[in-house]
Amino acid sequence: MSTIFEQTLTDAQTGIHLPTFQVDGANLPEAAGDSPWRIVKYTLRGGLQDGIDVIEVDNGELSFAVMPTRGMGIWRGWYRDTALGWDSPVKGPVNPAFVDLNDRGGLGWLKGFTEWIVRCGLDSNGAPGDDVIIDNNGNESTVFLPLHGKIANTPAGHVSIKVTDQGDLTVIGEVDESMMFGPALRLTTTISTKIGSNRLSIRDRVTNLNRHPAELELLYHCNYGSPLLEEGSRVVAPFKTVVPRDARAQEGIDNFDRFQKPTNGFVEQCYWYELASRPGGETCVLLRNRAGNAGSSLRFNTKELPAFTVWKNTAARENGYVTGLEPATNYPNQKSFERSQGRVVRIAGKASYDVTLEVAIHDSRAAVRDVEQHIQRIQGRRKAIVHKAPLPHLSDLTG
Amino acid sequence: MSTIFEQTLTDAQTGIHLPTFQVDGANLPEAAGDSPWRIVKYTLRGGLQDGIDVIEVDNGELSFAVMPTRGMGIWRGWYRDTALGWDSPVKGPVNPAFVDLNDRGGLGWLKGFTEWIVRCGLDSNGAPGDDVIIDNNGNESTVFLPLHGKIANTPAGHVSIKVTDQGDLTVIGEVDESMMFGPALRLTTTISTKIGSNRLSIRDRVTNLNRHPAELELLYHCNYGSPLLEEGSRVVAPFKTVVPRDARAQEGIDNFDRFQKPTNGFVEQCYWYELASRPGGETCVLLRNRAGNAGSSLRFNTKELPAFTVWKNTAARENGYVTGLEPATNYPNQKSFERSQGRVVRIAGKASYDVTLEVAIHDSRAAVRDVEQHIQRIQGRRKAIVHKAPLPHLSDLTG
Amino acid sequence: MSTIFEQTLTDAQTGIHLPTFQVDGANLPEAAGDSPWRIVKYTLRGGLQDGIDVIEVDNGELSFAVMPTRGMGIWRGWYRDTALGWDSPVKGPVNPAFVDLNDRGGLGWLKGFTEWIVRCGLDSNGAPGDDVIIDNNGNESTVFLPLHGKIANTPAGHVSIKVTDQGDLTVIGEVDESMMFGPALRLTTTISTKIGSNRLSIRDRVTNLNRHPAELELLYHCNYGSPLLEEGSRVVAPFKTVVPRDARAQEGIDNFDRFQKPTNGFVEQCYWYELASRPGGETCVLLRNRAGNAGSSLRFNTKELPAFTVWKNTAARENGYVTGLEPATNYPNQKSFERSQGRVVRIAGKASYDVTLEVAIHDSRAAVRDVEQHIQRIQGRRKAIVHKAPLPHLSDLTG
Repeated sequence: MSTIFEQTLTDAQTGIHLPTFQVDGANLPEAAGDSPWRIVKYTLRGGLQDGIDVIEVDNGELSFAVMPTRGMGIWRGWYRDTALGWDSPVKGPVNPAFVDLNDRGGLGWLKGFTEWIVRCGLDSNGAPGDDVIIDNNGNESTVFLPLHGKIANTPAGHVSIKVTDQGDLTVIGEVDESMMFGPALRLTTTISTKIGSNRLSIRDRVTNLNRHPAELELLYHCNYGSPLLEEGSRVVAPFKTVVPRDARAQEGIDNFDRFQKPTNGFVEQCYWYELASRPGGETCVLLRNRAGNAGSSLRFNTKELPAFTVWKNTAARENGYVTGLEPATNYPNQKSFERSQGRVVRIAGKASYDVTLEVAIHDSRAAVRDVEQHIQRIQGRRKAIVHKAPLPHLSDLTG
Repeated sequence: MSTIFEQTLTDAQTGIHLPTFQVDGANLPEAAGDSPWRIVKYTLRGGLQDGIDVIEVDNGELSFAVMPTRGMGIWRGWYRDTALGWDSPVKGPVNPAFVDLNDRGGLGWLKGFTEWIVRCGLDSNGAPGDDVIIDNNGNESTVFLPLHGKIANTPAGHVSIKVTDQGDLTVIGEVDESMMFGPALRLTTTISTKIGSNRLSIRDRVTNLNRHPAELELLYHCNYGSPLLEEGSRVVAPFKTVVPRDARAQEGIDNFDRFQKPTNGFVEQCYWYELASRPGGETCVLLRNRAGNAGSSLRFNTKELPAFTVWKNTAARENGYVTGLEPATNYPNQKSFERSQGRVVRIAGKASYDVTLEVAIHDSRAAVRDVEQHIQRIQGRRKAIVHKAPLPHLSDLTG
Repeated sequence: MSTIFEQTLTDAQTGIHLPTFQVDGANLPEAAGDSPWRIVKYTLRGGLQDGIDVIEVDNGELSFAVMPTRGMGIWRGWYRDTALGWDSPVKGPVNPAFVDLNDRGGLGWLKGFTEWIVRCGLDSNGAPGDDVIIDNNGNESTVFLPLHGKIANTPAGHVSIKVTDQGDLTVIGEVDESMMFGPALRLTTTISTKIGSNRLSIRDRVTNLNRHPAELELLYHCNYGSPLLEEGSRVVAPFKTVVPRDARAQEGIDNFDRFQKPTNGFVEQCYWYELASRPGGETCVLLRNRAGNAGSSLRFNTKELPAFTVWKNTAARENGYVTGLEPATNYPNQKSFERSQGRVVRIAGKASYDVTLEVAIHDSRAAVRDVEQHIQRIQGRRKAIVHKAPLPHLSDLTG
């Protein structure tokens, strides 16, 4: 495999910044694959979206829109006739310049939440709350950490694309979540798809730029609305245990893996999974529609992403009818709680932490069945326990 | 009446965004009216103003500058020789990207306060303070609401202009104040004037995009400095009661409707009005100068805007010599207090709330007298009560 | 001396904003001096730097990059072969639109801290903490003041450059830190260098735009990393007293004027100086390398800047190996503490406060020795006292 095209779209250090860009099969016929692929860059204008860079990768069957301005999140996608993502009450993405994460009791993140796939992290994710840090004077200091951290609202400083002769279309981005006397974490993400394929892969490396150890909380908030989410849709996953987050989730435990139709007044339910996996940690989860002829699967490694959360928010369509499949290093509780349970990653000085997540879309009964069988093989004869009530080591029940 | 010209200037969804634009009487001679009108769009550059879009509508006699980037507020105006608006210590409007509403105890709004007419709202307005909301988990949660809410610091996602054969010049804007798990309110404003006229009308519709009910607090902060505000200027209004907000306002109650000259060290005084109106709710208030040969009037409906506040801030010119005439759904107290008094509007799911405000400028003794007589007719023989002291249902006196 | 060239680069009031600009010796041969000078303006693009204007002044020997978008701070410099400034863990400057000063317990300023010379102020600087202000109602109100104030994250509204026949290259900027009912301070800075010289001067005027008195806290955070900072580098200053800020600084008091090599885990140490000066207040401090053949000196007036702090942060290179020499109106404690000690400047209504700071670079043993001798002459036979422990009037030891 050799690279036949490479282009830097943004490099803040040297001042490179192409406002628009396109490369496609007509330019590069030597890229293997029959589908009419292209990579296009443009910038959103007007309103809260003003200034957001978008890179759309279309492999001919699957297309998706990466947003360097929003931490290399993936706004939305399209596989053949199937829309990927969801309809947020926030209409269109929001430039981080207009997001105040600390607003409304630390829920400001929700003002910019529109993505299909958005990272929560890097120094922290999960519920807002106080945490104790070591300040510049070496003293303990209590600081407030808002919901889901900063990475989704941090623009990438370096963005490039690459095409190989084997038909690999790749976007690479570098996002720094850094400050003096605090976390200095660099996300380097490589988002790739092959011409004509039904999948994309996200290979992320988080590097601790400092010489002393850093903490990491990283969660991939993968969100689906219609059409993959509908009444009777199901989450299929190989698991050891499933546990309701709280009393509200407990109400729905008998149908933890099934979804309702849009229901006005529905209050979210979250389920914590301990997934089963192959000996090497490989695992797979699937969201499938009722008929079982369409779905989207996530493949990842439980050694990299040991926690998995299903967020069910089958509210009225206008309020955001959506489910989140959330592979992560941790459960999205307050960071202080996660640390107390040993679920915050520690990265040594100058070291890094690697994660790979593969997202595939399946649009036939056979394809969905294949994934379900794959998941069954991972499950094997391992016992799958569904807890009826929350567990104190998974949810902070004292709050 | 038929539309002879229409142009979308911004549509964030489809990426339309014209950096500059002009249409005028030379382009469109078929628009009725003799005055040399024009509509011009440009973008401010440099400093805190950088990136603010401005649409100036000049009907030949009256001109005003709408700012899509600042929630479709009206920066300033000019009627013949009379400047409309005021001189803020903040020199020029401020891009919302540089405004932190939660700064300085929730007074960050004051860092961007320069407009002639600015909306306060939509989910909340008034004094900063804590409020209890229902969070994503269905639980009560205390959040801090900063001064005067978000709408003035939210860019419009859709902006268009329209000209009719009858000489109507109209700017239409759509501003979303929305978040996941929180208020999702859309302001659609239609700001219109007729070629050669002395007035503009603001027709606002606030739509609840969610399916469950939403709250609305909406206040039109209409601000005047020199020349309409001067020593001896007066507010003329038909009213049932006037009540001082607090002890400080009580000091000035004997001159509640008259203004001082710029006075260094003057501390603001606010008066709550319950206005009289016609049976249909139509009412009118006037600010007139000492000589009674210049003024500006506001016409609105007390069924839409039942509360009216006069904010007197006759401080030194450099500190902001200004009065605010403030028709509103509520008095600008903390939202929790206004709710306890039944003054927060509730909009059903998918429903909307309409408001019309007409602003006119009068530059002759006869014109001012006409408005005063109009106001006297609304007052009729109805008793007008001036309370000497604050009332507990209008001001939170426990604070 | 007469001005031979003048250009406004930005004037927000009139909409002037040149995206790029260059003038140099080839354009203006009549400017005295043999070195190949130039002044270039450009805008950074991409990432957190997006939209930052930079004006690079290169006098042929000394070059430096002024950032109007970041309050006219000086990003970095270069004198012949010597880099000026430091390597922050924040890679490149950050547009204020992406800085939330109130984040992380008021330490948000540290997310944008990359400059060689950055002002802290104007209304406040120093450690974050609560302060009592007078609000719009004339009442005392407690507000939170974040670290180091707002001026470094406020864009300049007016920027111009000037060249004289004597070879003076000057950048002039105006930055407003103003709000309604709060501080309205205007910084007018004149940053100048002469063609071929080894120095630049910063002449700042802070004007109180209001008619009532204002407070001022102003600190020049002048930061040096390699090569001027190295093991064995020294601060040379004429002083009456040196006092450690806290117990941590006390640990290093025996070497208060000497620097370590990059040391992982090093916790910052601050020393408060009361400088000696000439009868007119003129004083000078120097950072010199171990060999004594390179250094940078600051000349200022203790009547304008009576406080001087040395911040030693000889941490690991990746974490920010840096020292700050900080001439100021005050020590960077919480503002309330500084006020209680009489160290907050009061500017009468419409009055102003002037400060001049001259920064020179020395790259020979002779030049460094000259400065050292100059400092010795200022010291004269005056006693220099090094306190071994913190003093209660200089550090808030109750916290």
